[in-house]
Amino acid sequence: MPTGTTVSSAVSSPVTPPLAVTVIGLGAMGSALAGAFLDAGHSVTVWNRTPGKGDALAARGAVVAATAEEAVTASELIVVCLVDYDASEAILTPLAKALSGRTLVNVTADVPDRARTAAAWAAEHGIAYLDGAVMVPTAVVGTPAGLLFYSGDPTTFERYEPVLRALGGRTVHVGDSPDRAAVFDVALLDLFYGAMGAMIHAFALARAHGVPAAEVVPYMTSIVDLLPEALEAMAGDIDARSYPALTAGLGTMAASVDHIVHAGRAAGIDSAQMEGIQRMTDRARELGHADSGWAANYEALINPRTRDRS
Amino acid sequence: MPTGTTVSSAVSSPVTPPLAVTVIGLGAMGSALAGAFLDAGHSVTVWNRTPGKGDALAARGAVVAATAEEAVTASELIVVCLVDYDASEAILTPLAKALSGRTLVNVTADVPDRARTAAAWAAEHGIAYLDGAVMVPTAVVGTPAGLLFYSGDPTTFERYEPVLRALGGRTVHVGDSPDRAAVFDVALLDLFYGAMGAMIHAFALARAHGVPAAEVVPYMTSIVDLLPEALEAMAGDIDARSYPALTAGLGTMAASVDHIVHAGRAAGIDSAQMEGIQRMTDRARELGHADSGWAANYEALINPRTRDRS
Ligand SMILES: NC(=O)c1ccc[n+]([C@@H]2O[C@H](COP(=O)([O-])OP(=O)(O)OC[C@H]3O[C@@H](n4cnc5c(N)ncnc54)[C@H](OP(=O)(O)O)[C@@H]3O)[C@@H](O)[C@H]2O)c1
Ligand SMILES: NC(=O)c1ccc[n+]([C@@H]2O[C@H](COP(=O)([O-])OP(=O)(O)OC[C@H]3O[C@@H](n4cnc5c(N)ncnc54)[C@H](OP(=O)(O)O)[C@@H]3O)[C@@H](O)[C@H]2O)c1
Repeated sequence: MPTGTTVSSAVSSPVTPPLAVTVIGLGAMGSALAGAFLDAGHSVTVWNRTPGKGDALAARGAVVAATAEEAVTASELIVVCLVDYDASEAILTPLAKALSGRTLVNVTADVPDRARTAAAWAAEHGIAYLDGAVMVPTAVVGTPAGLLFYSGDPTTFERYEPVLRALGGRTVHVGDSPDRAAVFDVALLDLFYGAMGAMIHAFALARAHGVPAAEVVPYMTSIVDLLPEALEAMAGDIDARSYPALTAGLGTMAASVDHIVHAGRAAGIDSAQMEGIQRMTDRARELGHADSGWAANYEALINPRTRDRS
Repeated sequence: MPTGTTVSSAVSSPVTPPLAVTVIGLGAMGSALAGAFLDAGHSVTVWNRTPGKGDALAARGAVVAATAEEAVTASELIVVCLVDYDASEAILTPLAKALSGRTLVNVTADVPDRARTAAAWAAEHGIAYLDGAVMVPTAVVGTPAGLLFYSGDPTTFERYEPVLRALGGRTVHVGDSPDRAAVFDVALLDLFYGAMGAMIHAFALARAHGVPAAEVVPYMTSIVDLLPEALEAMAGDIDARSYPALTAGLGTMAASVDHIVHAGRAAGIDSAQMEGIQRMTDRARELGHADSGWAANYEALINPRTRDRS
């Protein structure tokens, strides 16, 4: 049952756990979130579109609501974790009245503009709203290494932080603007999927030349080890829009990109990802950055050639 | 001066350092290699197309040859490090006679087929040949963490390994086929440039939403930390061509890729790299892998759609 707390952002005192918390969406991640709330001693109500997904949680003490509305009205804090905002709007839109006066935390991943729209909708219906993003796999949820971003009204965040902290030791409010968590989310996922995509292409390239993936993988940590320092250096250069070459210049690095594209094509494997990078390095050289550092590719991305865009 | 050792792969006994070594190409990497040979006590002769680049090495004891031919005839082991194989062929082709009876180690990066062509050319001219690849930045050359791959005749490798080890503690012979080092090289660089490309796009995406790169970069190590385990898992699945979903299915992960492309386009930044990844995930879903693990994207790369290829 809701404790009667209102939406007002003037209510700034942090809640004292345990709290009644509802989790909507019991996919891999929603189930992990509900489990972490249970582990932290909260009273957890759950609901999922397809029934049966709450059984394991029920065995651990969760209440499985019969309807989404019943789930919402069981708690003052409602956490939503679905595949995307189309799914979350489909479920939440009919529940505006039930949600009014409660706090909604949507950790479903999507693009920044969907977070802004959701926040506006919540405000219109008297729903306190935080947008969030889970940055770690399910196994890391609820541990000290668990990283979750939240954005929106800071008072709401401060109030529920003691409860949200059950989901991960690194519970960070990244900005008052509701889209901020989604911005951090897409930026981090961009790096993740860039690497995860290249990984598949790298294994395909090796295998096309008769080398099993298992033979190259032991050396790949040497590549991963280079990334933290590169990230630091590139971030500073891009913010300063100044691109000194470090040990290798963009032109020499672009030659390696050309080699990967060439080898991928010669092997008959789809190399569109690396062709996209080549498009960037080509453009950077066109902009006069052959002797700059790799970070100068930023200028290529924000000043794309327009003639070959469809 | 050459010690009179012949090209014969029957000469299997390792050389005893110090040795007379020549380095051709004094860009950032060639200079680092020559410096590492000097540090290890070898007699080093250097040459570079553009004069003046050997001055610092001369001050440390290297002999700067007046011509490439003079450089080659000064040593039994010649290491070449240039921007690519077009440059290395331009320099080496006229030197076939001078190289005959010596050992040529080409650590210039390029595609596997160039390594095969170079090895055939060397064999034709009685030149013992190893193809190599430097997998670390210049600062790591000559240290225990220095990773360099070599491929080609194993007897030649065994003979010069004590000298080549001066370039890095992880001096690895990856196969008898001369193109093998280049295969390992492009595969590792594929991962590196995939991540390095995505990094720039990620910062561009953040900045387009008013978030400086410096604000997101502290969290990016959480992403980097996920890669080693993912690499291991994907390699095994791809070699087995069996793709169990781990915590998240390909379909849910593909939704995140769609979000990145959407957000990139909405921000007006070139997103061709991520569009290439989206092309892969679209194809994987088309092949029925929405509920498989991410590694199933391998099937998409080796079975690309043909209709939309130009
Ligand atoms: N899994 C991870 O490791 C991970 C890590 C970080 C972030 N995330 C994010 O967490 C979110 C959830 O991911 P997940 O791994 O839990 O996904 P999932 O296992 O695929 O579960 C998807 C959830 O969305 C629901 N859903 C899908 N379409 C719906 C619709 N049209 N209407 C109502 N419900 C719908 C599903 O309900 P049904 O059961 O009824 O289909 C299920 O509850 C995503 O935004 C993802 O990016 C996941
Ligand atoms: N730098 C790194 O951190 C790094 C790391 C791993 C691998 N590598 C690899 O090492 C190799 C060399 O890289 P680098 O960083 O040393 O490159 P660099 O600093 O750009 O130097 C390029 C070298 O190639 C020579 N060159 C270019 N075009 C030539 C031509 N047409 N004819 C003759 N010589 C030519 C240059 O001579 P001039 O001085 O006369 O122009 C110079 O010696 C590349 O294959 C690169 O991928 C580099």
